[in-house]
This record gives sequence, C-alpha cells and structure tokens, in this order.
Amino acid sequence: MASSSVPTSVSSATDHAFSVEGHDQLQLQLSSEDRQRITERTKWVLDSPDPPGFRQEILGSIRNAVCSRKNKKPNATHEPPLACVMAFLSSVFPILNWGREYKVSMFKNDLLSGLTLASLCIPQSIGYAALAQLKPQYGLYTSVVPPLIYSTMGTSRELAIGPVAVVSLLISAMCSKVVNPMADPVSYNKLVFTVTFFTGAFQTLFGLFRLGFLIDFLSQAAIVGFMAGAAIVIGLQQLKGLLGISHFTTKTDVVSVLIAVVKSFHDSWYPQNFILGCSFLIFILITRFIGKRNKRLFWLPAIAPLVSVILSTLIVYLTKGDEHGIKIIKHFKGGLNPSSVNQLQFNSPHLRESVKIGLVCAIIALTEAVAVGRSFATIKGYNMDGNKEMIAMGFMNIAGSMSSCYVATGSFSRTAVNFSAGCQTAVSNIVMAITVLVSLQLLTGLLYYTPVAILASIILSALPGLINYTEAYNIWKVDKLDFLACAGAFFGVLFASVEMGLMVAVAVSFAKIILNALRPRVEELGRLPGTDIFCEVDQYPVAQAVPGVLIIRLNSGLLCFTNANPLRDRILKWVTEENGKEATKRPISGIILDMSSVTNIDYAGILALEETNKKLLSGGIKLAIASPRWQVIHKLKVAKFVDKVGRDCIFLTVCEAVDSFVGSKFNGPSNC
Amino acid sequence: MASSSVPTSVSSATDHAFSVEGHDQLQLQLSSEDRQRITERTKWVLDSPDPPGFRQEILGSIRNAVCSRKNKKPNATHEPPLACVMAFLSSVFPILNWGREYKVSMFKNDLLSGLTLASLCIPQSIGYAALAQLKPQYGLYTSVVPPLIYSTMGTSRELAIGPVAVVSLLISAMCSKVVNPMADPVSYNKLVFTVTFFTGAFQTLFGLFRLGFLIDFLSQAAIVGFMAGAAIVIGLQQLKGLLGISHFTTKTDVVSVLIAVVKSFHDSWYPQNFILGCSFLIFILITRFIGKRNKRLFWLPAIAPLVSVILSTLIVYLTKGDEHGIKIIKHFKGGLNPSSVNQLQFNSPHLRESVKIGLVCAIIALTEAVAVGRSFATIKGYNMDGNKEMIAMGFMNIAGSMSSCYVATGSFSRTAVNFSAGCQTAVSNIVMAITVLVSLQLLTGLLYYTPVAILASIILSALPGLINYTEAYNIWKVDKLDFLACAGAFFGVLFASVEMGLMVAVAVSFAKIILNALRPRVEELGRLPGTDIFCEVDQYPVAQAVPGVLIIRLNSGLLCFTNANPLRDRILKWVTEENGKEATKRPISGIILDMSSVTNIDYAGILALEETNKKLLSGGIKLAIASPRWQVIHKLKVAKFVDKVGRDCIFLTVCEAVDSFVGSKFNGPSNC
Repeated sequence: MASSSVPTSVSSATDHAFSVEGHDQLQLQLSSEDRQRITERTKWVLDSPDPPGFRQEILGSIRNAVCSRKNKKPNATHEPPLACVMAFLSSVFPILNWGREYKVSMFKNDLLSGLTLASLCIPQSIGYAALAQLKPQYGLYTSVVPPLIYSTMGTSRELAIGPVAVVSLLISAMCSKVVNPMADPVSYNKLVFTVTFFTGAFQTLFGLFRLGFLIDFLSQAAIVGFMAGAAIVIGLQQLKGLLGISHFTTKTDVVSVLIAVVKSFHDSWYPQNFILGCSFLIFILITRFIGKRNKRLFWLPAIAPLVSVILSTLIVYLTKGDEHGIKIIKHFKGGLNPSSVNQLQFNSPHLRESVKIGLVCAIIALTEAVAVGRSFATIKGYNMDGNKEMIAMGFMNIAGSMSSCYVATGSFSRTAVNFSAGCQTAVSNIVMAITVLVSLQLLTGLLYYTPVAILASIILSALPGLINYTEAYNIWKVDKLDFLACAGAFFGVLFASVEMGLMVAVAVSFAKIILNALRPRVEELGRLPGTDIFCEVDQYPVAQAVPGVLIIRLNSGLLCFTNANPLRDRILKWVTEENGKEATKRPISGIILDMSSVTNIDYAGILALEETNKKLLSGGIKLAIASPRWQVIHKLKVAKFVDKVGRDCIFLTVCEAVDSFVGSKFNGPSNC
Repeated sequence: MASSSVPTSVSSATDHAFSVEGHDQLQLQLSSEDRQRITERTKWVLDSPDPPGFRQEILGSIRNAVCSRKNKKPNATHEPPLACVMAFLSSVFPILNWGREYKVSMFKNDLLSGLTLASLCIPQSIGYAALAQLKPQYGLYTSVVPPLIYSTMGTSRELAIGPVAVVSLLISAMCSKVVNPMADPVSYNKLVFTVTFFTGAFQTLFGLFRLGFLIDFLSQAAIVGFMAGAAIVIGLQQLKGLLGISHFTTKTDVVSVLIAVVKSFHDSWYPQNFILGCSFLIFILITRFIGKRNKRLFWLPAIAPLVSVILSTLIVYLTKGDEHGIKIIKHFKGGLNPSSVNQLQFNSPHLRESVKIGLVCAIIALTEAVAVGRSFATIKGYNMDGNKEMIAMGFMNIAGSMSSCYVATGSFSRTAVNFSAGCQTAVSNIVMAITVLVSLQLLTGLLYYTPVAILASIILSALPGLINYTEAYNIWKVDKLDFLACAGAFFGVLFASVEMGLMVAVAVSFAKIILNALRPRVEELGRLPGTDIFCEVDQYPVAQAVPGVLIIRLNSGLLCFTNANPLRDRILKWVTEENGKEATKRPISGIILDMSSVTNIDYAGILALEETNKKLLSGGIKLAIASPRWQVIHKLKVAKFVDKVGRDCIFLTVCEAVDSFVGSKFNGPSNC
C-alpha cells in the first residue's frame, strides 16, 4: 500500500516551516555556549560511523563460528608439522593434555569413585534398559562404549556417562509408536540403534557448526517442568514391574497408565512383587537419608541399589519365589558388546521418524548433560567447552549405535555420586566402563533370579532428584509467564505425551518473547531531584516531571511492526489526555522520545515515528529524539527521518533535549 | 535439573568474603560525601515500589480494553435517559454527529465525487466479480449495500467502499479449492456468502474486543510484498479475458497460469479480443497519464473505464463482433439486491473452511481499509477510530452476506479518486450506492454486448497502483530482514499460492523478532570526553574506555533463555581476552553491567547473571549492575540476586558505578 508516500508529500512544506520557526524561538533562551555544546554533541550522534551492515554481520558471525579455533594460535604456521598434528590431536582428545599430568595419587581417587559409580550404574542401567523396552544387557552395553569414548574426548571431569531415565523414556515413548516392541523386538532394536546413530550425528553437527544455541531453545523453566513430568510418568511406568503386571499399556500419559493399572487388578497380580519392591525401595531411601545427613557415608546410598539386587536375588533363589509369582529377569545375555553396524537402517520406511526422534533425543540428551556438567564445572572452577562437549557426545553415540548401545548422556544422579566420591578426572568413567565390562563377562548368569520389582524400585528411588520443587517455586516468584512454560511442559508430558510436553514448553517460551515484543509500553520520565538524571516516574517516585515537556521512554527493545502502531496511538492519546487533564499547568509544547532502550527499529517503526511527528506538528507540538542507539540512528538517517524531524531535534541525552526545550538549565550543583 | 542450587551453596561463603573486603578497599579513595551520595542513590534503585504484578497487568489491559468508552463520560449517569440513548446512538452511528452539521455546499462536492466514484465503480465492480468467479451483477450488488451501511457507521470521510482486487483474488483462490465454481456455481455462491458472513463476524469481533493489534501482525513490509505479488497474479488471471481463452486453470501461481496460456494457443483463440482489450487499456493508461500531469483533469482517468465500456459495447453491437469470436458478458440480471439469507450455510461440511477463509479475508480486508483510510485521514488531519472502523466494516459485510454481496472493503484506487474529486463526507458513498442501484434497475440490459476483454483491461489498469517499487526500495535500504519478509510474501504469492505467501510473510516477520531476541549483543561503553556520559565506543569513536574497568551494555531488550547463556559466555570470554590482550594496561578489576536496555529478564537470565557473578568472583573481578529497569530490579530482588552480588554493587547510573570503582571522580566541569 502506498499509504505513507501520499501524506509525506502534502505536509512536508508545513513541516519544514514549523521546524525552523518554532525551534529558533525556543533556543533564544539558551546561552550561545550551551547551544554550541548541544549542537556539537548532536553532531556526535549524527556523524557516528555506520554500524556493520547485514552482510558484514552475517559474515562476521560465520567467521566467528568457523575460525575461532584458528584465531587462538596465530603463530601455528611457524610450528613444526609434528607439533601441529599434536596440537590438533590434543584439541580433539583432551585426554592427551591432562593425561600427561596424570599422577598416581589421582588414580586412587578415580579408582574409588569409578567402582562406586559402577555399583550404582549396573542396576540403574538394567532398569533403564527395561524402561526403554530393551533387553537388560543393552543397558549395560551402553555403560561400556560411550563412557570410554567420552573419557578421551570430553572436557568435563565429573560427568558420568551412560543411559539415563528421561532419554530412555523418550526412546520408549517415541519408538514404540513406530514399531511395537512386543510384537517385533528385532525391528524395534534396529530402530533404536538407527535413532542412536542420528542422535550422535545431530550432536556432532551441532558441535562442528557451533549450533550450541539450539539447546538454549529449551528454557530453564521448560526443562524443570519437563523433567518433573517425565519423572512422574517414569514412576507410573514402574508400577508394571512393582505390581508384577503382565499386560500393560504402551502409552505414557497418566490417564492411560492408571486405567491399565486398575484393569490389571481384575487379572491376577501377585502382592509378593509389591512387598519385595517396596521393602527395598524403603531400604534405598533410608540409606539416601543417612548419606545426606552424614556426608562421609556418601557411598552408602551409592551401593545400596547393588546390595538390594544381590540380596533380593538371593532371597528369590533361596525361597524359589519365581515359582510363587515373583517376576524375574530370566534370560540375560552376557559377553562383550556385539557389533550392530548391520542393524542400522538407512533405507527403511521409518527413516523419517528415526531422524525426527534422533533430533529430539539429541537436544534433550545434550540439555541434560551440559546443564549437569556445567554446574559441577562451576563448583570446581574450570571451563567446560560446550562445542567440544557436543562433538564428544556425538561421537560416543555414533560409536554406541555400532556396538549395540542406545542413547547415552551425562546422568545427574551418577555425576553427583562421582563428584561426592572425589573423582579427579574422566579416568573414573574408564574404571566404571571396565568394571561393567567385567561384570558383563562374568556375572550376568547370576542375575537370572533378580526380581523385576527391584529394578522398578531402583528407578523409583532415582526419580525424586528429577523433581525440583524449589526451582519451580523460584520460577513462580520471578516470572509468572516462565512458570506457565514450566507448567505447560509438566502437564503436557503428564496428560498428553512426552513430545507434546516438549512442544508446549517451546511454544510457550517463544510466545513469551513475541508477547514481550507485542505489548506497547511507554513510560514517563522525570528529573531526579538535584541531578541531571531522568528516570521513570513510576519506578522513582522522587522524580519530578518537567512542566511543558512530556518525556516518554519506549520500554521495548524492538520498535517493530507488532508494537509500532499501538505505540504511536498510545503517545498521541497520552498527549491529548495530558493537555486536557491539567488546564492549570503549562500546556505541552514538546515531546522528548527517549530511545535509549530501543536497540533496533524496522520499517513499520520508522513509519510510525513519521506519522507521530506529523500528527504532533499539526497540533503545534515539537518532537525530539534523545539518545538513539547505533542501529536506530543509522536507520533513521537512511530513511531520511532525521531530515524530516530536523537535525537539531536529535539529542545525545534526555537532559540536553530538556535544556534545549525549556531553555533554562538546572542550576544546582551538577552531580554526575 | 537442580544444576543451580549446588554451586550456590558451595561458593556463597567466598562470595560474601570477597564482596566485603574488596569493596571497602576501593571505596576508601572516595570522599565520605560522595560515598553517601552514591549510597543514597542506590537506595532509590533498591527501595523503589514494586512494579504492577502479572495479575494487575492482565486486569489492567482488560479494563483498558473494556471500559475506555465508559471512562470518557464519567458524568453520563446525570444526563437524562434520552440524551444517554442519543449519545450511545451517535457513538455507534457517527452520521448522527456530522449529519446535523451537514450543509448544502458540502452536498455539491459530495454529489460530484459520488458520481465520479460510481462511473469508476461500475466497471471495476463487474471486473472484480469476474475475478472472484462470480456473475457480474454480484459485483454491483456489493457496491450498493456495504457503502450505504458504512456511510452511517464509519469514521472515515474518504474511504470508497466496494469490492477490491486483492480480496476478490483471495475469495477466488481459496473458495475454488473447496467448491468448483464451473461445476457447481450455486454451491460456490453459497460458500462465498457464508465466507462473507464470517468475514463480517470476525471484523465485528475484532472491533468489539479491541483486537485491532491482530491486523498489525502483517508487517508493512509483508503487505508491500503481498500486494505486489497479488497484483501480478491478478494481472495474469486477466490474460484469460484479454485473450478470450475458454479453458483456463483455476490455480493462481505463475507457472500454472503461463502453462495454461501456452496451451490455449494451440486451441482456437481470437486476436480480436486481444486487440480490443489492448486498445482500451492504452486509452485508459493515457488518460491516467494526463490526469497525473494536470491535477484539474482528475476526472478523466476516473470516467475513462466507463467510457471504454460504453464505446466497446457500441462497437461490438454495431459490428456484431460477438459473431466473430469476441467474448461478451451476455446475461446480466438486473434489479435490486435479492436476499441471500437462505444461502448462508452453517451446517455444511465446508463450515471449517468457511471460517478459515473468513478469517483471512477479514484480516486482509481490514489491513487494506485501515491503511488507506488512515493515510487520507492524516492528510486531512482528523482521527480515524480503528475499533469503530472494524465494527462498521463487520456490520457492512454481515449485512452484505444477507443481500447477495461478497466481501467489501475500502478500495485504494477509488478512495484516491474520491479524495481528488473533493468529497467532504461519507455522503459521496451514498450517492455512489444510489447511482449503482439505479444502474442495476435500468442499465443492465445495455451491458449484454460488453466485451469481456474490456473488463480485463480495466482491472489491468488498476494494478500498477498495487505495486510499490519505491516503498520496496525503502524497505531494502532500511532493514534487510524486513525486505526478506517482503520478498517472501511476493514470491510465495507468485509461485505457490495466496495463502502460502501470507504464511511466509507472517513466519518471516515473527522469525525476525525471535532472531533479534537470539543474537547476544554486548557492547563496550566509554566516557565521552568532558562529560559524565557513557556511550558505546563503536558508535562514538570519541568515547574513551576507563582503565581497569570494563563497562558492558547488554544490547537486548530481553535477557531471556535464548540469549542468557551466550551472553554469559561472551562476557566471560571478553574478560579473559581483555585481560590477556594488553598486559601493559591496568588489569581489569571490575565489570559494570549497564542494564538500561534490558526491559525484562526471566529465570534463565537471572541464573546466567548469577553464574557470571560467580565466575568473575573466582577470578577476583567485581561485578556491578548499573541502571536496572523497574521489572528487572524487582525480579533481581525477588530472586535474591541483589543479596548475592551485594546491595552496594547496584548503581543508579554507570557514572556512579565507575566513580565507586575508580575512586576518583571526573574533575572537569560536569556538563549534563
């Protein structure tokens, strides 16, 4: 629509006449020195160099992303080729760096923490594999290859790698919709490995192309809600094992699961499973309570799951419980990780779903690992390189997909145990992996009689750590809309599905940003007494409005199409109200627009400013722009708005604009 | 994830120790008076009243929306009931206001402009009806009822109401996908009336609930691109009439239309149609050129279409051209608008599509009408009430849907003619409607021999006004991303479909907002020489950095989950680089974070600030927050970040923070 060009041509003549006449009259009251000073500062604003253009910014951000490693070593070319190769290798494999400084005293700590980790990892891995609807050995496989690869490539020292609850739930919920794991377990396994491959591929890509910002798309609030929802869903899934139910639903929402549980009561169910599971759940929770009270006994909750497994297996074996209805694991294939290269399927009809599930798993796995790793790195005061971390995770999952592993990542509960056990380096992960490997070789036969209910209680005992009441409460206190994203994720996971919860969370988070850009906020500024500082009168009740001048600040980072027209209307309405309200006061002769908050403006914003200026001029009111930012003043110059409003109506600060309007400078001692 | 709570508890002890010790040492260099002043001002920042909460804001905006009309007349209750009713009536029907002051001298102008309008409106309406794949009389019906209703309810004085090209294209493109107008014209008509009803219903709802901001969702740039694309698509559609092709595609994209045209050359086509159409197109364009050169001859381009219709009809009638392959309109049902209440279908299987098309038409129609009306209102210097305008448009379309009209709105080309002809009030619309009505009664029989090619050339002649090169060029100059939205809409309409073009435009526009919230921008501030003003060193090359202190401004209106982590990383990296780069300079002992641009912060933002503070403290660097905004300081207080960073590290301005850090105040004359 050519709406803007028509008015411009018609009123530009009056515009110019008013600008010259009106302003000269006002400025007569200022001393010539002051006037010169203000003019000079306006020149600073108007003659600033151009900001980097669109192309330069794009190129700059690409260069930043690609070359930042090269820039670190500008003299790399002068090094001998061998040193170059070594530098590259040690950048890809940080183990080559810290490995050279590794000491025996460190190994003592790492061995201890690695063994503690393994004792927690073995039962958890078996349980999480069951949650992912895989055979138990796949959980153990996943605790062997990925930790070994991560320990050579990762930059975190504490992160304990292996299967985790939330990713297992994701795999189970999303893959079982594509292939039914009960009806066709072979195809299901193939699908899971393919998904794992794509997860790794996406993570590697994120790292190589420095797309780490993608994992920031899930806001902290959304993650808190998602994790809590997932924990409850996982807990409900454990009712199957805990109650010894044979026929269970494949859906994950609360309603379906509860209906399945109620239905199963009509079938045969064996309370022995429940009693056994609950007793050991209580045992594990008590050890955790003791461990929290007495920090020295940190190993007690760590080995409690393994103790439970051993004790319960013994009980079942001795009492022949499996003949009395207690469900046991039974078949458990031991031995080394078998190759699964041939099971990756890139030509199957499910390829599209595999890629989609892989992407979701990649983001969730990275989110968890980076958050956990970073929080412990902060405690120990070292830096974790986000991009290297993503590449390491990617490689370990790609390698995992070829050696019968499913998606591995950093586990929160095990990382905390690793930290408490005093691990020094990633060697603890190596110790753990070797321990699991040895167990796979030697001990799997002993797990034949392990009751399923125990696995359920081990998973259940790990869940409270995923539900973070205090953080949810903090989010509620700080930002109600953030809490909405949190609650959306929580209820989405609980009552719809895991993907729906994630989608709700992402949608609410982005809606929040757009909502913020939508709401037109303008605030009146006033002078703080005894200063030349102008602040919002609502925020600082001591601030006093300047008679005859309305100082308005746009409280929006972006003056764009969503808020430009409402802002224009607000300002014009405000002027009308202000002029009508107090007939006793001096009528408003000028408006100062403080643009200091506006970091960017678009075409619609400039049009709105032009219309505002035109309307104000027709009412005999002068418009001044104060402290425009770099991009904004550049665009105002390019769009010739500066010429329309008059070069002498652009000011460096609000204070100078007020001086120029009122004509009398504040007389007290100028403080700051 | 409980990532944040762990580090907090561990390092809070060191945090506190550093804050007390470090700060006392720095402040020793300041005079006690200065220190007191700064402390007092910090109190202003910290003891400000709480900003309106989430609930208050929601309630406030609802109250604003609902009660603003009531607030205007607080003493309305004291008026007699009759006056009350009259006030309400004249608020709904502005004609009651301006009608009382209507003078005979005005009517002379309105009569002239109304007749000019009618002479342009009759041929255009017939053409646009053909574009919408309706019988020609429906175009004329649409120029009778809606203008009559609008003239009583609308607030614009110039807006010429009737069918327009873009909305006709929308109706044709979207409705013909649901019902084939060739195969089942009766159902197609029913669908169009139902869509018109929903268009009116949506427009009324927008007006009643003050949802005017919805039409702002289409940015100026998107509209420019959409209109240009639609103009080309409409032009291509006219090839059917201009070439006299019988079999044509129902698709609207360029490729399909060109293929259909090429195919039709193999069939029989009659060059007479083309020659006739082109001759009159050239005639119309020449009159327009003359009208532009000589403003007094504005009536020449306005009546040229009618003259063309009359002349070409005569030619065909006299030469019996219809027997030689010239396509003519033939049947043309005259008479009053018949009722179409019985044709509205609320139980049909197409209800969902009707609602969807109605919503799209409502938004596009309003966008065009409001933009056109507002630009002419600005020229004449009166206010157009956006909400009343939407209600008026809604009512006229609802009434239209019951009297055989399709969607009407304000036409850009006819409004310009109306303005040039010197219309004074909406009476010109009434004159036009009555003239069209009389023509429908008396003259439709004469239009039997009107060639179809003339209608095509009349529509073609109106299209260049929709393509706005200069505005597209301005958009390119000002904002490259805005131009992307413009180009997206243009090519989307051209090569995909009308809806796709709109969707691309909306998507790009919103992606722009999110992209802006994504990019972490931090800039260094320096002191402008001879002042206490701190500005970006890139924007103001005269600004000088303060040695030993890094002053960073966050160049983002929102410190939220999308940019919080990258911002934290940028700041920490910057500090490392700055400390490493210049070993000769004083190492950085403090960082001042100027938060003046940040209008809001969310939970992720606060976490990032906490982590930044922690990391900086572990490197012995002090963090200060300068000029936080209302919402931000409130949330920082609620989240206890103020206690963590120390109450004495919050400052009213950057200047005071620098004074507090450097300890020596700037000694020159403090100028503003």
